[in-house]
Amino acid sequence: MTPASNRKHAGRRQAPRRSPGKHTAILDAATEIFLRNGFLGTSMDEVALQSAVSKQTVYQHFASKEALFVEIVSTMTDAAGDAVLSAAPVLPDGGDVGEYLRTYAYRQLTSVLTPRVMQLRRLVIGEVGRFPELAKVLNERGPQRAIKAIATAFEHLAERGLLVMDDRSLAASQFNWLVMSAPLNQAMLLGDGAIPKAPALRRHVAEAVRLFLAAYGTEHPRRPRAR
Amino acid sequence: MTPASNRKHAGRRQAPRRSPGKHTAILDAATEIFLRNGFLGTSMDEVALQSAVSKQTVYQHFASKEALFVEIVSTMTDAAGDAVLSAAPVLPDGGDVGEYLRTYAYRQLTSVLTPRVMQLRRLVIGEVGRFPELAKVLNERGPQRAIKAIATAFEHLAERGLLVMDDRSLAASQFNWLVMSAPLNQAMLLGDGAIPKAPALRRHVAEAVRLFLAAYGTEHPRRPRAR
Repeated sequence: MTPASNRKHAGRRQAPRRSPGKHTAILDAATEIFLRNGFLGTSMDEVALQSAVSKQTVYQHFASKEALFVEIVSTMTDAAGDAVLSAAPVLPDGGDVGEYLRTYAYRQLTSVLTPRVMQLRRLVIGEVGRFPELAKVLNERGPQRAIKAIATAFEHLAERGLLVMDDRSLAASQFNWLVMSAPLNQAMLLGDGAIPKAPALRRHVAEAVRLFLAAYGTEHPRRPRAR
Repeated sequence: MTPASNRKHAGRRQAPRRSPGKHTAILDAATEIFLRNGFLGTSMDEVALQSAVSKQTVYQHFASKEALFVEIVSTMTDAAGDAVLSAAPVLPDGGDVGEYLRTYAYRQLTSVLTPRVMQLRRLVIGEVGRFPELAKVLNERGPQRAIKAIATAFEHLAERGLLVMDDRSLAASQFNWLVMSAPLNQAMLLGDGAIPKAPALRRHVAEAVRLFLAAYGTEHPRRPRAR
C-alpha cells in the first residue's frame, strides 16, 4: 500500500482517536530513524514498526511523511531554542553587560552544537533540493527565532543605556553569527569530534563579545589587550 | 561489472595514457551529475556516458568514485577561492581601509554565493556521515583558505598601521564569518532565490565592516550614525 492510498484510507475526516502518547511515540521513533537514515532512507513502515503502532495509526497522526518530518524539524529546533530562552539570564542593576552577553552566547552555543542538532541540520540541508520546506522551518524556528530573541534582549539593554545601537535586528544578527558561525561551520563540516569543548567555546565567546561591544558597548575597550 | 572489479582491471600500474582533455571532460561531466543527483545518485557508468569515454578510462583518471568526488570538491572550491584572491585589491597609500575591506568582502561573497557552490556545499554537508573526507576538503580549501588569505591581508594592513590587532588569525576568522554567515545561511537554507542581490549584499558588507573597524580600526567610528 502506498503512502498516498494509505493516507486516503486513514483520512483525517474520519475523526480518528489520536492519543498524545502515541503521537509522542511515533515522533520519537521517527526522529531516531530520520537522524540515522535521512529522509529518503526512512519508511513509514519502519516508523510504525519502531513506534509499535499500525501504519494506519501513523497516518492518523501525520498526514504524510513530509508532515511528519516537518514536525520532527520543528520539535527538535524548538527544543534547542527553548533551552536557550527558558534559561535566559537577567542582568541585575549594575551588572556587567559583557558577562551577560557571554553567558547568553555560551548557552546558545551549547544548546545548538549537539551531535543531534548538527545531524538534523546536515540532513535538512542535504534535502533542500527535494524538500525545501524542511529548511524553511529550520531557518524560521532556528536562527531567525534566535535573532529575534537577541533583538528583544538588546532592546532592554539599550533602554537601560547599556548598549547603543540604531538597528537592533541588524545588531542581533551580527551578534548571533559572530557567536555561532565559526564553531557551527566546524561542527557541521568536521563532525561530532569537532564540536569545540567548553574552554575553546568560552575563549571564542569572549572574543566575539569583545568585538561586539567595541561597536555597540558604552565603554571603549576597543584597543587590543597589551601584548 | 562492479566499480571495484573494474578498478582492478584498469589498475593504474598499467601506466595508462591519461590525456588532460579527457581528465577535464570527465571532471566536468561528473560535476554536473554530482550537483544534480548527489553522491549516491551518481554512477560511474553515467559519468563515462556523459563524458563520452569508456568506464575504464574514467577509472584510469580517477581511482574511485570517492577520489573523483574529492577532486570535484577541490576544484570547485579552489575556483571560488581563486576568484577572490586573484582579484584582491591593493590599497594605495592614503587609501581608505574601510573601502578596501568592503571591496574584499563583497568579492568574497559574490564568489561563494553562487547556486553551484551552494549546491556543492549542501551535497557535501548531506554526505558528512557517509563520506566525511569531502567536507574536510571543502572546509580546508574553502573557509580555512579564505581565513588564511584574510589574515595575510590583515598582516600587511597592520604593518602599515591601518589595523590594530593582537591575533590576526582570530580577527580574520571574525571578519570572514561576520561577512559570510548571514547571507550564507540564507542561501544554504532557502535556496537560489534567497541569494541576496547586490544592493542587499553591499548594505550587509558595509555594516559588517563598520562593526569590524570599531574593534580593529585606528579611527573611532563606533557610535551609530545619527538618527
